[in-house]
Parts: sequence; C-alpha cells; structure tokens
Amino acid sequence: MSSRDQLTGAMAELLWERGYAATSPRDVMARAGVGQGSMYHHFSGKHELAVEALSAVTGDLTDESSLLDGDGSPLERMKRYLTLPRPGTRGCRVGRMTQDPQVVADAELITIVAGAFETMLGRWERAIAEAIACGELPASIVPADLARTLAAIIQGGYVLARAKGEQSPMDAAIRGAVSLLDAAHTTVDTDC
Amino acid sequence: MSSRDQLTGAMAELLWERGYAATSPRDVMARAGVGQGSMYHHFSGKHELAVEALSAVTGDLTDESSLLDGDGSPLERMKRYLTLPRPGTRGCRVGRMTQDPQVVADAELITIVAGAFETMLGRWERAIAEAIACGELPASIVPADLARTLAAIIQGGYVLARAKGEQSPMDAAIRGAVSLLDAAHTTVDTDC
Repeated sequence: MSSRDQLTGAMAELLWERGYAATSPRDVMARAGVGQGSMYHHFSGKHELAVEALSAVTGDLTDESSLLDGDGSPLERMKRYLTLPRPGTRGCRVGRMTQDPQVVADAELITIVAGAFETMLGRWERAIAEAIACGELPASIVPADLARTLAAIIQGGYVLARAKGEQSPMDAAIRGAVSLLDAAHTTVDTDC
Repeated sequence: MSSRDQLTGAMAELLWERGYAATSPRDVMARAGVGQGSMYHHFSGKHELAVEALSAVTGDLTDESSLLDGDGSPLERMKRYLTLPRPGTRGCRVGRMTQDPQVVADAELITIVAGAFETMLGRWERAIAEAIACGELPASIVPADLARTLAAIIQGGYVLARAKGEQSPMDAAIRGAVSLLDAAHTTVDTDC
C-alpha cells in the first residue's frame, strides 16, 4: 500500500474512532506509520486528509445501494437491500459523520456525505416508483417520501443498536419494515 | 439558576456542540460563568458533569414519548407522536450521543441513553399491540419489531436531515411512515 493510501486509511479509522475534532495530523501519521515529510508531500493538512478519507468511505455506501437497481421485482430488490447484513453496533460509516459537529460545519466534508445519501435515495425512489407502477405497492405512496422513510430505518437502526450495544434492535427494525411493506403489498393484478 | 444548574446546562450544550472528547472542565466553567471552586464543590469532574447533563436531556425525550399512552385510538396516537415537530437539522439530543465514541465507551453514560430509548420503545410496543388487538393493524406485525422500525424512522430522519442540512428529509421520512401505516391499516371490523 502506498503511503498516501496508508494515510487515507488511518484518517478514515480515526474519524470513525475519535471524530474529526479529536484527530490530529500527528495521530494520523502515527497510525499510518508514515513520517511528516511524506504526510505533507501528499496532503496540505487534516482537512484535505478528511476529504480523501470520506470520499473513499462514501464510495462503499454507493456501491452497496446499487442492489436496488438489480434483478427481481422492485419490492424484492427493496427487501433484499433492506436485509443486507448490517453490523448495527459498528454504525454506518457515512451516517455517523452527520453527527460529528465539525464535519457538519465543514462545507466540503458535509457535501461528500450529502452526495452519497442523494445517490442512495435516488435508487430507493426509482425502485419504489417501479413497485407502484407494476402494482406491488399502492398508488397512495409517494416514492420520494417512502425512500426517505426506508433509508431512515437503516440509519435509525444503527442509532438504536449503538444505544443498546447490541445487534438486535437493527434486526428488529428491519423485520418490522419488511412486515409493514408486506402488509401494504397489493397482491392483486401485479405485473412485476 | 443555581451554579449547579448552570454547570449542567453548559455541559449539555457543549456535549451537543463539540462532543464529549472535545469538551474540557475549563470549557464548561467558562460557558457557565462559574469558578473552579464552585465547579469542584458540585462535581468531581467531567464524567460526573456528563452524567447529570445526559440525565436531564434524556428526561425530555421520555416526557415526549408519553404521547403514545394518551387519548385516541392506538394508531391515532402513533401518528400523533410520529408527526410531532422535530427540528431535523438540530438532531436528536439523545440519539446523537450514541454516535459519540467516548459516550458509547463509557458504561455509565451509555446506560443513561439506553434507558431513555427502552422507555420510549416500551411505549411504542404497547401502542402497536393495542392497535393489533383492536384491529387497526394486521396480526402479522410483531409489536417489538415495528416499535424499533418506527423509532428508527425518527432517529434516521435526523441523520438524513443533518446530511442535507435541511428539514425536508425528516418531514418526508415521517410522511412516508404515515402513508405506509395507512396502507397497512385494516379498515374492517375495528374496535378501537
């Protein structure tokens, strides 16, 4: 791994473990095992490091939500994405950044986080609109609204799991979401 | 206001603005306008201050969720609690604490947060069980699961609102939840 990648990886870990305010360039260099010369050759400082680390982390979220565009009926794809394994107590690497006051206050950093959410929400909206169009979900549902509801269930599942220090609230929140989607499922005349 | 209350209030504000790690006893004294003698008369240090500040903050969440035990049919109460005004970009004062690594690592602090969530989840469960019992929601729904789903929508709504820096994702997530509950609503033979 290049020293640049080592520094980016170390910054991602420290953002996660300690938050932005409590992470110093010295901490990042120590974690990466990289000296000051190399560090300031690649990055002007902590902000630039955080931009690159957050971009790498949000890329993973974006890859994952492409499941919503995959095979199967729209409702099947929605349930498949909802029920992906999600280690609840670890938390969402992207969502947690919105709870870091220094990240939210930094226009460039919060834009990276917001962009990753917008991509994921757009995929939810398309899948929900398809489910309504083919008759799997009732026309009373607004895709842009339900997209945010379902994304919120995943993000909130992490919050509840971390509050309890257990995986179970995340799994329960997802099961409840699936049962509510099933209860709302219009089974007649579907063309999916 | 007593100097004790001023210190607790200042700690609550700083926990919120900066997080636990980035808040020093000196910061709390400066914000409260209280001297070192008074500070160490009331509190042994930062940990004890945080315990008292978090207890005060979680009390507010607990008061609010008592709406779920109020008047009206169970589904009406659930929707009333869901649609309370919630300033999304501010975030949930309790939920955000689960994203602070130093709070999660502190057994006493995370227990206060977990206790507030358990009280709120217990109220959700009772209201959902009543809605099923009187025929407003289908028997396929498990109260303990849906309780976590609905609590997650509120918590996740804050995450999405903070990511975007706008209230709209919170409102959309709540509208989507209400429309899904309405779609799942069993309208025949209710006795609520």
